[in-house]
Amino acid sequence: MLKNIGILTSGGDNAGLNAVIRAVTRTGIARNVGVYGVRRGYRGLIEGQIFPLNSRSVAGTMQLGGTWLGTARLPEWQEPKVRREAIRNMNRQDIEGLIVVGGNGSLTGAYNLHKDGFPVIGLPGSIDDDVNGTEVCLGVDTALNIIIEAIDRIRDCASSIQRAFVVEVMGRDCGALAQMAAAATGAEVCLIPEEKAPPMEKIAQALTNAYTKGKPHAICIVAEGWKPGTNELVKYLQENEEITGFDVRTTVLGYTQRGGAPTYRDRMYGTLMGAAACQALLDGETGKMVAIVNGSVELVPLENVVGKLKPISTDLMKLYKELDV
Amino acid sequence: MLKNIGILTSGGDNAGLNAVIRAVTRTGIARNVGVYGVRRGYRGLIEGQIFPLNSRSVAGTMQLGGTWLGTARLPEWQEPKVRREAIRNMNRQDIEGLIVVGGNGSLTGAYNLHKDGFPVIGLPGSIDDDVNGTEVCLGVDTALNIIIEAIDRIRDCASSIQRAFVVEVMGRDCGALAQMAAAATGAEVCLIPEEKAPPMEKIAQALTNAYTKGKPHAICIVAEGWKPGTNELVKYLQENEEITGFDVRTTVLGYTQRGGAPTYRDRMYGTLMGAAACQALLDGETGKMVAIVNGSVELVPLENVVGKLKPISTDLMKLYKELDV
Amino acid sequence: MLKNIGILTSGGDNAGLNAVIRAVTRTGIARNVGVYGVRRGYRGLIEGQIFPLNSRSVAGTMQLGGTWLGTARLPEWQEPKVRREAIRNMNRQDIEGLIVVGGNGSLTGAYNLHKDGFPVIGLPGSIDDDVNGTEVCLGVDTALNIIIEAIDRIRDCASSIQRAFVVEVMGRDCGALAQMAAAATGAEVCLIPEEKAPPMEKIAQALTNAYTKGKPHAICIVAEGWKPGTNELVKYLQENEEITGFDVRTTVLGYTQRGGAPTYRDRMYGTLMGAAACQALLDGETGKMVAIVNGSVELVPLENVVGKLKPISTDLMKLYKELDV
Amino acid sequence: MLKNIGILTSGGDNAGLNAVIRAVTRTGIARNVGVYGVRRGYRGLIEGQIFPLNSRSVAGTMQLGGTWLGTARLPEWQEPKVRREAIRNMNRQDIEGLIVVGGNGSLTGAYNLHKDGFPVIGLPGSIDDDVNGTEVCLGVDTALNIIIEAIDRIRDCASSIQRAFVVEVMGRDCGALAQMAAAATGAEVCLIPEEKAPPMEKIAQALTNAYTKGKPHAICIVAEGWKPGTNELVKYLQENEEITGFDVRTTVLGYTQRGGAPTYRDRMYGTLMGAAACQALLDGETGKMVAIVNGSVELVPLENVVGKLKPISTDLMKLYKELDV
Repeated sequence: MLKNIGILTSGGDNAGLNAVIRAVTRTGIARNVGVYGVRRGYRGLIEGQIFPLNSRSVAGTMQLGGTWLGTARLPEWQEPKVRREAIRNMNRQDIEGLIVVGGNGSLTGAYNLHKDGFPVIGLPGSIDDDVNGTEVCLGVDTALNIIIEAIDRIRDCASSIQRAFVVEVMGRDCGALAQMAAAATGAEVCLIPEEKAPPMEKIAQALTNAYTKGKPHAICIVAEGWKPGTNELVKYLQENEEITGFDVRTTVLGYTQRGGAPTYRDRMYGTLMGAAACQALLDGETGKMVAIVNGSVELVPLENVVGKLKPISTDLMKLYKELDV
Repeated sequence: MLKNIGILTSGGDNAGLNAVIRAVTRTGIARNVGVYGVRRGYRGLIEGQIFPLNSRSVAGTMQLGGTWLGTARLPEWQEPKVRREAIRNMNRQDIEGLIVVGGNGSLTGAYNLHKDGFPVIGLPGSIDDDVNGTEVCLGVDTALNIIIEAIDRIRDCASSIQRAFVVEVMGRDCGALAQMAAAATGAEVCLIPEEKAPPMEKIAQALTNAYTKGKPHAICIVAEGWKPGTNELVKYLQENEEITGFDVRTTVLGYTQRGGAPTYRDRMYGTLMGAAACQALLDGETGKMVAIVNGSVELVPLENVVGKLKPISTDLMKLYKELDV
Repeated sequence: MLKNIGILTSGGDNAGLNAVIRAVTRTGIARNVGVYGVRRGYRGLIEGQIFPLNSRSVAGTMQLGGTWLGTARLPEWQEPKVRREAIRNMNRQDIEGLIVVGGNGSLTGAYNLHKDGFPVIGLPGSIDDDVNGTEVCLGVDTALNIIIEAIDRIRDCASSIQRAFVVEVMGRDCGALAQMAAAATGAEVCLIPEEKAPPMEKIAQALTNAYTKGKPHAICIVAEGWKPGTNELVKYLQENEEITGFDVRTTVLGYTQRGGAPTYRDRMYGTLMGAAACQALLDGETGKMVAIVNGSVELVPLENVVGKLKPISTDLMKLYKELDV
Repeated sequence: MLKNIGILTSGGDNAGLNAVIRAVTRTGIARNVGVYGVRRGYRGLIEGQIFPLNSRSVAGTMQLGGTWLGTARLPEWQEPKVRREAIRNMNRQDIEGLIVVGGNGSLTGAYNLHKDGFPVIGLPGSIDDDVNGTEVCLGVDTALNIIIEAIDRIRDCASSIQRAFVVEVMGRDCGALAQMAAAATGAEVCLIPEEKAPPMEKIAQALTNAYTKGKPHAICIVAEGWKPGTNELVKYLQENEEITGFDVRTTVLGYTQRGGAPTYRDRMYGTLMGAAACQALLDGETGKMVAIVNGSVELVPLENVVGKLKPISTDLMKLYKELDV
C-alpha cells in the first residue's frame, strides 16, 4: 500500500480539473493515503511546490473553472535529468505515486516518468478531444456547450442581416470539436484537418445552395488546424459575395472555450475518473490512463495512448452531412 | 420498404425533442421515405392532426426547448378501440410505421401499438431518467445542468447567511436526477425513493457535522418522490435549527428543470437516436426502443423496457457518499 | 478626516454586494483611510468580528454571488444597549464611520445608529426593490435576469403541452419584481399586493381569452405577498381547467432569484454606489443613503427612506396592460 | 391623427429590437392606428417589402435575439431620389409616419427623411453605445453581460496558467463598451480611442505591476477602434514576456457580443422606448429621437444627435483607474 500520492494538472487548462483534484483527494483520504497537491504541473515537481491536501482543501472547488493547483508547460520535462530531479523531490516527501491530468504532451511526460520506474496514472484532459484511447476528454462537454451557445447567438445576428459566418473553434490537429459542434448546430459547412480540404469553389457552392433554399444565414465551422486556414477561407468567400449572395463575417472563439463553470458532465467525468485514477494507483497500477471506453471508466495502457492522434468519427461525419440538407 | 412514417412526442416535454424530430425527418428524406409529423402526441393520431414534413419544416428548431410538434397525455390510449382509430387514421395517409418519443407511459403505449400489429420504434425522453434499458434518457443532461446552476446560486446565498437548504428536484419514482445532482454539486445530503429513508435525526446529524466542520452552508437534495417528503423534512429541520446550527430554507426547482435550449449532449443524443430510430423502422424493426447502451446507440426490445423501473446506480451512490466528507 | 471606516452587509443577500465591498475598500485606500470589514452584519459588530481590509482582500471578488463578508439578521439591534455595545467595539478600533448595505430593516438599523450619533451611510440592497428613495436597489437587475430566463424556459414547456403556469416571484410587500418581470416577458397576468386583487373569475377569464386567441400557453406572475396567495389561485384555476382550457401548473422561483454571478449592471451599481458611500462618509455626511435618482447616484436622507414602502410604478403597470393584448 | 405608421430596424443588429417592434405594434393598435412592418431596413422601403402587423405578429418575439424584421445597410439612402422612392412607396400604403431603430448612420438617414418632410421618430440601437443624446443605447446591456461572462471565463483560464490576456471588444470610434467592461471586471488595463494611447512600455509596466503584486493573471480590454490596435499591442507584449512575467494570449470577442436572448433591461428599454416612439409620432412629433435622459425616456431633436459622437464618461474612467489597484 502506498503511503502518499501526488496530483498535478498540466498543459492547457480545461473545465473539470477541480472535480478531479477533489475526487483524488477525498478518495485517498477515505483509503488512508496521504494526498499531495503539486502547483503548476511538472514545474511544481521541480520547484518543490508540493503540499499536503485535506478534505477542506478541496471544498467548494468543483464548480470553479480552470485549475486551482495551476498548470504550466515545461518542455524540459523530456530530459531524463529533469525528471530525476522531480523523482528526488517526490521521494523526499514520501510520495510514491503520481496522477497527471493533461493532453497528449502531458501524458507523454507521464509515460516517460512511468518508464523511469515511478508509478503514474494519467487522466485525459483536453478540450481538443484529441487523446487516443478514450471516447471523450475532460473539458470537451463544457467547451461544446460554450461553442453552441456562441453559435446560437451568431446565428441570431446572421439571420437578421442575411450573412454567412465563418466560426473557428479549437482543434490544432483534430477536428473533433468542430465536427461535434457542426452536428449539434446544423452548421452548413464543417472543415477539419482530417479530411482533404475541398476546393474553395465547392465551399462557396454550399453557401450558394443555402442562399437559394432561402436560408437567412449560413454557418461554416472551421477547426483551428484546418489548412489553408480560416483567413484564406474568409478572403475567398468575401471576394465571392456576389456569387454566394451572403456577406461574410468571421469569429474566432478562442480562449472563451476553455473555461467557466464546468457542466454537469465534466464535473461527473472529473469525479469518476479522479476516483478511479486514485484507486488504480492504490491497486498498484502504473503506466495506465483512466479513460471512457464504451461509456464507462476503464484503464488503458499509456503506451497505446501516446504518439497517436485520436481518429475522427467517420460515422458522425456521415450522419452530419446527411442531415444537413 | 415503408412508404411513409410518422413521428410524435408524448407525455411531459424535455430538451432534445426538436433534435429528434429534425433527425427523423431528414433521415427519412435521405432514404426517400415520406415523414409525417403528429401534433400533441397520441391525441393528434386520434384527431387526425397529421401532416407531411419536409427539410425546411425542421430548419432552425434544434436549439429550441420543448417540442414544436406539441405533446399531450391521453389515458384513453390504453383502450384498444382508441388505438384502432389511430391506426385507421394512419392507414388513411399511408403511414406504415411510427416513432414515439416519451417516458414510461408513452413507451407502454408504443408497445401496445406494436402488439396491435403496427410497426413502432420508441425513443426514451424523460427528465426523470427512469426508463429501463437505456443508460440515459433524452433531456436529462439539460435538466442536470439547470439543476447544478441553480444549486451553485443557492449555495452563494446559503454561504452568505449560513443556512441549510433543502432543494427538491424532479423524480417521482426514481432518484437518479437527485443522485447525479448531489454527486456533481457535493451536496451534503441526498434523499431518494430507492433507499430506505434514514431517521430524521440522522439527517439532522449530517447538518450538525457540516456545521461543526465549519462549512458555511449545507445542501440537501431531495427527489420529488422521496417519502416522507420535502415538507416533512423541512419542518423537522426547522424545529431543530438550534441543534444543527443552520437556519433552514427550501426551494422546489419544479418546471424550470424541463426546458430552455438543449445542451450539446441532448442535441447530439436527439440527433443520433432520432436517426437510428428512423433507420430501424426502415430496416423493418418494430417493438424496439433506441437506447444508449455502453455509450452507443442500440436497439432494445420494448418488452424489456415497459413495466420496469430503471434501477439506481449503487456504485455512484457509494462514490458520492465517500467523497462527501 | 476620518481615520478608519467600517463596511457591513446585512439582511438577505443579493448580487452586487462584493462589488460594493471592493469599491468601498479601494476608495478608502485611495483616500488614505483605513477600511475594516465586519462579518455577518450587525452581529459582527457585537461579536467583534471586525478586521482590516487591504487592496488584495477584495481582489477577484466582484464576479461572485452573495457576500463574502457574510450577512445575518439581528432583531436585537433595535435595542439601544445592543447598539451601544457595537459603538464601543468600533471605538476600540478607531472606526469612526460605517457603511451599511441592506434592505428596509437594515437601513432602519443604520438610521438608528446615526441617531445615536455614530456616522453612517446606507446603501440599498434588496432584490424586492422595495426601498423608498431610490429608483432601483442593488441585486434587482440580477434577480430579474434570472426570473426572465426561468420564465422563458417555463414557456417552452407550457407551449409544448398547452398549459397555464402560475409563477411566484419574490416581493413580500412590494410587487415591483413581479411587475417588471411581467412587462419583460409579456406574461398574461400579473398580480401584486399594491393592487386590489381581482375576483378569481376575472383572472380565469384572462386565461380563457388567451386560449381563445390561440395562445399555446398562459403565464401568471404572482408576487410572493399577493393575497389571497399563489396556492389559492392555483387551486381555483385547477378547479376551472375545463373553462379556461388550460391545465395549470405552478413554480415558486424562491431562492434561485438571489444569486449567482452579478450582472453587469449590479457590478456597476455596486461599484458606483460603494465609491459614493465611502466618499460621502469622508465628506462628513451621515444619516444618508446613496441612491439612484434620475439615473445617477445621489444622497438622500435616511429619514425619508425608513418606514415607507416604495410605491409601484403606475405608468409601467398601465403600459404593461396595454401591450399585453 | 395618423392613419398608418411604419417601423423598420436598420444597420447592425442588437438585442432588444424585437421588444421595440412589439411595443410599437401594440401601442399603435391600442390607439387605433395601423402599423406596418418593413423588412430589411431602408432597403425594404425601396423594394416595397412593407406589410401590416397585428397583435399576433409580434407574439412570442420579445425573448429572441436579432430582429425578426431583418436589417440591412443601404448607402444609397443618402441620395434624395432614393428616399423619394421610399416616400412614394409609403404613400401608396397610406403610411404617414415612420419609426427607425439604428445607430448613427441609420439615424442620419432618419433625419434626412424628416428634412424631406416625412414624419420620423428615431430610436438608438447600437451595441457600441456611440449615439449622442442618450445615456444608453438599446443592446448595450446585453452586450456587456456577454462580455463580462466571457472575461470571467478567460480569467479562470488566465489564472490557471498565469497569463495575460488582451481582449478586444466592439467599439469602432467609441470606447464606452471597453470602459464599462473594464470597470465591471476589474481589468488591469483599458485602452480606448478617446484617450491618447499610452506608450507600449507603460502598458507593459501595468502588467509587470500586476505580476509583482502576485496577481495570477492580467486582463487588458481594448476597444476595436483603439490605435495602434490589438495586434500591435499583442506583438509588443509577447516580445516582452520576460519583462512582464506573463505569457500573453488574445481573444477578439467579435459577433458573439451582438446577440442571443436580450437581458431584462434591453427588453424593458425596447418596450419603453418603442411605446414612446409610437406615441410621439401620434402626437405629431417628427425629427426627434426617443432617448434615455436622466434615467427616463425623453425626446431629443435628431439635429443634436447626428454627426456627433457620444463623449466618453470621464468620471467613470477616473473611478475605474482609482479602483484598479
